[in-house]
Amino acid sequence: MALITFMSDFGENDHYVSAVKAKILSINPEIHIVDISHNINPFDISHGSFVLKSVFREFPAGTIHLVSVNTIDSETDNYIVAMIEGHYFIGADNGLFSLISEQDPEILVKLRNPDIGSTVFPSRDIMARSAAMLAGGTLISDLGQATTEYKKLLGRQLKATKKQIAGNIIRVDHFGNLITNIDQEIFSILQKEREFIVKFGREGIRSIHTSYASVDPGECFVVFNSLGLLEIGINKGNASELMGLGFDSPVIINFLE
Amino acid sequence: MALITFMSDFGENDHYVSAVKAKILSINPEIHIVDISHNINPFDISHGSFVLKSVFREFPAGTIHLVSVNTIDSETDNYIVAMIEGHYFIGADNGLFSLISEQDPEILVKLRNPDIGSTVFPSRDIMARSAAMLAGGTLISDLGQATTEYKKLLGRQLKATKKQIAGNIIRVDHFGNLITNIDQEIFSILQKEREFIVKFGREGIRSIHTSYASVDPGECFVVFNSLGLLEIGINKGNASELMGLGFDSPVIINFLE
Amino acid sequence: MALITFMSDFGENDHYVSAVKAKILSINPEIHIVDISHNINPFDISHGSFVLKSVFREFPAGTIHLVSVNTIDSETDNYIVAMIEGHYFIGADNGLFSLISEQDPEILVKLRNPDIGSTVFPSRDIMARSAAMLAGGTLISDLGQATTEYKKLLGRQLKATKKQIAGNIIRVDHFGNLITNIDQEIFSILQKEREFIVKFGREGIRSIHTSYASVDPGECFVVFNSLGLLEIGINKGNASELMGLGFDSPVIINFLE
Repeated sequence: MALITFMSDFGENDHYVSAVKAKILSINPEIHIVDISHNINPFDISHGSFVLKSVFREFPAGTIHLVSVNTIDSETDNYIVAMIEGHYFIGADNGLFSLISEQDPEILVKLRNPDIGSTVFPSRDIMARSAAMLAGGTLISDLGQATTEYKKLLGRQLKATKKQIAGNIIRVDHFGNLITNIDQEIFSILQKEREFIVKFGREGIRSIHTSYASVDPGECFVVFNSLGLLEIGINKGNASELMGLGFDSPVIINFLE
Repeated sequence: MALITFMSDFGENDHYVSAVKAKILSINPEIHIVDISHNINPFDISHGSFVLKSVFREFPAGTIHLVSVNTIDSETDNYIVAMIEGHYFIGADNGLFSLISEQDPEILVKLRNPDIGSTVFPSRDIMARSAAMLAGGTLISDLGQATTEYKKLLGRQLKATKKQIAGNIIRVDHFGNLITNIDQEIFSILQKEREFIVKFGREGIRSIHTSYASVDPGECFVVFNSLGLLEIGINKGNASELMGLGFDSPVIINFLE
Repeated sequence: MALITFMSDFGENDHYVSAVKAKILSINPEIHIVDISHNINPFDISHGSFVLKSVFREFPAGTIHLVSVNTIDSETDNYIVAMIEGHYFIGADNGLFSLISEQDPEILVKLRNPDIGSTVFPSRDIMARSAAMLAGGTLISDLGQATTEYKKLLGRQLKATKKQIAGNIIRVDHFGNLITNIDQEIFSILQKEREFIVKFGREGIRSIHTSYASVDPGECFVVFNSLGLLEIGINKGNASELMGLGFDSPVIINFLE
């Protein structure tokens, strides 16, 4: 029995999350549902795609990821199931899935609407039902009609030259740490053992640390995090609040000759 | 093995939720517990009954709903298990269960106190224990003494005439959407294809939309939601904050001749 | 199959919690994971140890408690598994486990680092892996090297004489109730049926109530809670906010002759 993960912008004060789970468990009470987060900022595809991209590969191949973020974007919304890197993703065709992988979907199916007419709760009435069926062994091709068209979005891109990498903060996490889109691999290729300075806000730091605790409490660290992305923070402090930096703030690495 | 759902006003920063789950799992480690919400506003029977009413029927018949909201209201509190519409409900006799269904309980049992003397944590010591026993096959009649007396509360009632439906906001959800007690069925019976105006705050809207995305972002929508209740919101915005409306604010539908 | 509980200061808006769970489920999809809380205040060993101490004994003996609170405290952090009172605890050697029991660990093992080199996400890469192996039957002694050295911290201590017990608030809970370190057993031994006055903030109360609802709504109660600790609150109100008391505020019991 495949695992279903569930991520949403529903919050945790309403019946929405449990209504979706109840639907799944009504179809098959043996299904194991793991929550990813239900605190994705309302309608925030950037937040949702970051979290999903950061974790989906940790689950076993074949896991079904049910994603209810900004699910009602227009009156003509489509709901899709995509197979990407061996995982299934079910959600609205709002571009979120295009941000989680460099690869195009191996299979893409537009979900068939159920026989209940229109719905204002597609997460429960269309997506949860499809997820439960998929977990129960229904073939992805039997969930609707194969398609190749889906909405594609482009995330914040790095600008990298021999002299400079110019990136942005793409996520402020629970600790106030500032996660950037500057990748360790690109940095390694461009650095060529030169000295460098990492600039953000009013700070300039000339080294990359190996641990969040490489500096004293209250001091600023720069590490490559577990995602391989440059992350800035303050040991035991909240860097976003203390430095006034947030989503989209620029982070620049200048290489010195 | 029956499913147990768990809803409380315990929040998620303390040991209370996991203490209840641990008690259940100590009695029977195979029981599947599904959280409904632990962020019910402290002591708020209105919030709790709204969430429970909105979701319990989605679960399979026979599901056990453990409800820890305002569990200690007086020194002489009783704890009960009620069968309503084929579901089991375990909680304090504080009136919450009288708000979730039009039907009276099919079976009602006052839970026997365990042999531990008095307790300041009845959710763990009385209710969780009973829920686990029920899930394990104990008959409801063996959990205590049958009774017919329980506390009944009356929710906010609609005032409906041929000319007007006068309702209230009964829940502000995570998105700031305003859910009213105006039911689609009553509206349909009274409307008789007449034009109408929905009035709330300073707004007056002359149509009911079919989707949350029927209007442009930033514009106000009025839909019948997945519960069949009139819901007011702002597409991609927070209607409660932007319009200054909240719990109990009036919403009026005037039918035009 | 043993149960794994999971407590962290990761919050619920990021991928951290689900990344740890995914790691466990990738190793063994049958493992049952129960969340204790992921809202422990960042880096707050006092908060974490209070919650864990308050609940771990409710779980069956042999339960594995995975604890990710302040996991990166220094560059030379060790990760340990300790058996205490028949339960397994996996976490950083930061002193948290020394605060949850009067007893020393029966077994203590320093976890072997995996073959991945250094990691900035030890909860996933070292601790989750060890938890899953332990749940799957690996012997604790096979997870690393036995040791007897671990960090010990000392919690806030009571000062108790024949005339007075001087304690502190050690936790403000979700309801704003003030939980102290004054133990019912010590109180009983010292009281000797004398009258007394409990003093905190500007209040002085001459009795200990038997229920949270022994006083009218809005009035102050003092009870021994389900942990056997003196707890101060306001019935249906938030004592911390209303009385301006918080973590570490003094609470004094004076015995009268």
